[in-house]
Amino acid sequence: MSIEKVAQLAGVSKATVSRVLNAHPGVKPDTREKVLAAISACDYQPNLLARQLRTAQSHMLLVLISDITNPFCSRVVQGIEAEAELHGYHILLCNSASQLQREAAYLSLLTGKVVDGVITMDAASGLQDLQALIAGAPWVQCCEFDPDIPASSVSIDHLEAARDTVHYLAGKGRKRIGLVNGDMRYLYSHHREKGYRQAIEELGYAWSGVSYTYEISCEAGSQGLRELMALPEPPDAVFAVSDVLAVGVVHAALEAGLRVPEDLAVVGFDGVPFTRSLNPPLTTIEQPMNQLGARSVQLLLQKIRNPNAPVIREVLPWTRVERASS
Amino acid sequence: MSIEKVAQLAGVSKATVSRVLNAHPGVKPDTREKVLAAISACDYQPNLLARQLRTAQSHMLLVLISDITNPFCSRVVQGIEAEAELHGYHILLCNSASQLQREAAYLSLLTGKVVDGVITMDAASGLQDLQALIAGAPWVQCCEFDPDIPASSVSIDHLEAARDTVHYLAGKGRKRIGLVNGDMRYLYSHHREKGYRQAIEELGYAWSGVSYTYEISCEAGSQGLRELMALPEPPDAVFAVSDVLAVGVVHAALEAGLRVPEDLAVVGFDGVPFTRSLNPPLTTIEQPMNQLGARSVQLLLQKIRNPNAPVIREVLPWTRVERASS
Repeated sequence: MSIEKVAQLAGVSKATVSRVLNAHPGVKPDTREKVLAAISACDYQPNLLARQLRTAQSHMLLVLISDITNPFCSRVVQGIEAEAELHGYHILLCNSASQLQREAAYLSLLTGKVVDGVITMDAASGLQDLQALIAGAPWVQCCEFDPDIPASSVSIDHLEAARDTVHYLAGKGRKRIGLVNGDMRYLYSHHREKGYRQAIEELGYAWSGVSYTYEISCEAGSQGLRELMALPEPPDAVFAVSDVLAVGVVHAALEAGLRVPEDLAVVGFDGVPFTRSLNPPLTTIEQPMNQLGARSVQLLLQKIRNPNAPVIREVLPWTRVERASS
Repeated sequence: MSIEKVAQLAGVSKATVSRVLNAHPGVKPDTREKVLAAISACDYQPNLLARQLRTAQSHMLLVLISDITNPFCSRVVQGIEAEAELHGYHILLCNSASQLQREAAYLSLLTGKVVDGVITMDAASGLQDLQALIAGAPWVQCCEFDPDIPASSVSIDHLEAARDTVHYLAGKGRKRIGLVNGDMRYLYSHHREKGYRQAIEELGYAWSGVSYTYEISCEAGSQGLRELMALPEPPDAVFAVSDVLAVGVVHAALEAGLRVPEDLAVVGFDGVPFTRSLNPPLTTIEQPMNQLGARSVQLLLQKIRNPNAPVIREVLPWTRVERASS
């Protein structure tokens, strides 16, 4: 590759050569001079240079996230931002709340070539609509994905993680394991409930109980627990699909005079750092948040560089972190 | 103003007319038609139109934040994003960790006219260096600011909030009130410590104790408390300069066998929603997080529209939210 020769000769990275070729403003004048000198000095083909100039990229990636105030989302965004920066890319953030209208305004930046590609963290239920707007542009589905959409995705195996969690609670002697679930527009809510129900069936348990929360907040988690406690037989364990919901579950349990974990074992999901410092510390299913973001960027850059790159369904490992709440 | 006439005639907002004039991609074709028809129908001056086209703006704002995973920061960003969107602007996010090198790459977007202006949430200590990079471009300092820099700022009165908090704890009978402070590169750390020391002096207290944390995390808060507990006389109250630090303070206190608030009263800062659902619920000084973001955008847009707009030091109100931890 000629670009590598140029980089070697100029004593800079390939990314720097690319930035000069793309007239990127973030290159120091003397670095630019060195690169241009190397281009003339070596056998770098002018027509290749011309082609690269024609396909000039903005080096900006659009990130559509549903809720930046969800600590899980903000950590994935941190991973996206850090990885993008490593490759000389900037991120444009749309806190979409999964609202198609807000997203449409941002996605028009794709057609205007303001951004080179898009990473979505939106509810899977809306991804078909987004597909029409994104058209054939480079796209990676992060965490939430629709298997029928031919754009790569990075996620964990939500079903298996939920199934394992229920078996873990059963192994601790729990007989009535409830699920505080999220918004069913999300793939993770579907998959975790499926894993939950599968485990309940495998265990031969007659008792099951699911409540659905309208948002990811502590208050919603408390409300979710209260609904389960109102059942004729209340649960002796609760699996909440988010650490934030689990904080609310523990709070409502203590407020109702229950002991955690003696009367009610609680397990959260995501593995955000504050779970370590709660009282009691929270058992949780840790997702590799930074890596989910970083891999999404890597797959997106592959697609930007090579429009024929294959669709990849990447499934990253999760970890159960056992603490005093269960 | 001609632009207002055009907007009125077309039955759209001034912002929409501006978007059409700036060839912004987020305008529906029929809206664009209506605006163009109104421009020909009324006495809108072609030379004014030409001027507006010459000064075409990107409608993108750069936001430099020190830590997106700090729930305070992510809520301010939410406020920035929502307000920007109202005015047809998009935000480009740089999670800078207050590192000048990372910021420099983003700030080069200002000279390239990729962004119209910048909002910084960076540590005040680095703002002088940033000033050289930002040069005269539209800039608003959000939360952190340097009073010597001629760019508008939006903040609360940290000194007064801290002073009031110490008096509040003294009013509850506390005699040894400690401060778990943050990184002294931040203006808020300086101002809150100043307010703390002022109140200690006003109260005539002989005891004072301050620990400094290396980052905003629960673990750092726990470490901060342990340092204060190692003093010859340990504190009977702790004021932590962030809710996240306060979570760690409470955790370390309970782990050490102390009762909260009986043995140790704890007050946090910021007012992030999860403080309501902790055990015990946390007393905190609530900052108007969304409003801090929204006002920053409003002041920035004023500056973008009118380069001669005066420098404004806006100080928003804070609120003490009393809960069981104190």
